[in-house]
Amino acid sequence: MGLFTSPIKTLDDLFTHMLQDIYYAEQQIAKALPKMIDKAGNPVLKQAFEKHLHETEAQVTRLEQVFKLLDKPVKGVTCAAIDGIISETKEIMSDVGDQEVLDAALIAGAQAVEHYEITRYGTLTAFAKQLGHIGAAGLLEQTLIEERATDTALTKLAGQEVNRKAAA
Amino acid sequence: MGLFTSPIKTLDDLFTHMLQDIYYAEQQIAKALPKMIDKAGNPVLKQAFEKHLHETEAQVTRLEQVFKLLDKPVKGVTCAAIDGIISETKEIMSDVGDQEVLDAALIAGAQAVEHYEITRYGTLTAFAKQLGHIGAAGLLEQTLIEERATDTALTKLAGQEVNRKAAA
Repeated sequence: MGLFTSPIKTLDDLFTHMLQDIYYAEQQIAKALPKMIDKAGNPVLKQAFEKHLHETEAQVTRLEQVFKLLDKPVKGVTCAAIDGIISETKEIMSDVGDQEVLDAALIAGAQAVEHYEITRYGTLTAFAKQLGHIGAAGLLEQTLIEERATDTALTKLAGQEVNRKAAA
Repeated sequence: MGLFTSPIKTLDDLFTHMLQDIYYAEQQIAKALPKMIDKAGNPVLKQAFEKHLHETEAQVTRLEQVFKLLDKPVKGVTCAAIDGIISETKEIMSDVGDQEVLDAALIAGAQAVEHYEITRYGTLTAFAKQLGHIGAAGLLEQTLIEERATDTALTKLAGQEVNRKAAA
């Protein structure tokens, strides 16, 4: 938000602003994932990132449905948080030489992205329910469940093999 | 990380880098919280932020213990992720006029911070265990448990009263 955007007066304004924020965030994540897929060495990790890219694309479409359901223009606003999280992940990617350690770093970076999405979709779902936007709440909650599942799958993959190989 | 920092070669290097990252992050959070306490209108929220400030200060000390346990210099590195998350929260704080809506926005901002900490302490605890740093893992996990509890308390507070008042 800044000089040329509307101030937030109501919970509905805040909800709309956060929808625009996550819409921008999802697009940045969709742009970042191909590089992460490319850098991943572990085939299961590569596959998990590929799956998540498809999921992210569907989540962008789902957000567009939410905007339409609520009769709001489909629009993003720059999200400093996701920009920071992605920039940190890219920086670490370029600083790690060893492939096994890089895989562990990629999981850590992806989980930071997931947790940002989990917190935002959690808040958005709660706001949508409070505002009586039941259809929108259902769509947002669907994405929330997917993000949590991705995070859990990454924790499992790290614990099962990636961290051990990185430490070897 | 950048031109003048050491490249990451091993999981231990990555672990150290992420310790430095969260050490910087905790310090930024400790700096941001007094403003959030000041802006919070709901007395229970104000109290929750005050409690979390004390907890954050103890978590900084706990991280210093981890550095010492591992015989590493106590040092932070700039963390673009937390800088982005805090900057977004500050921006929203300055854009919201209504106190009840501001309280809902403050909870959303604080939960974004909590989720960043949850993901990082989760990764750090897993790395510490993998590397056999059992004492460090115990301290990091203690903070992880606290961050999760703070996040849960904020979700509860939002659901119980803050979002309803913001929508009124």
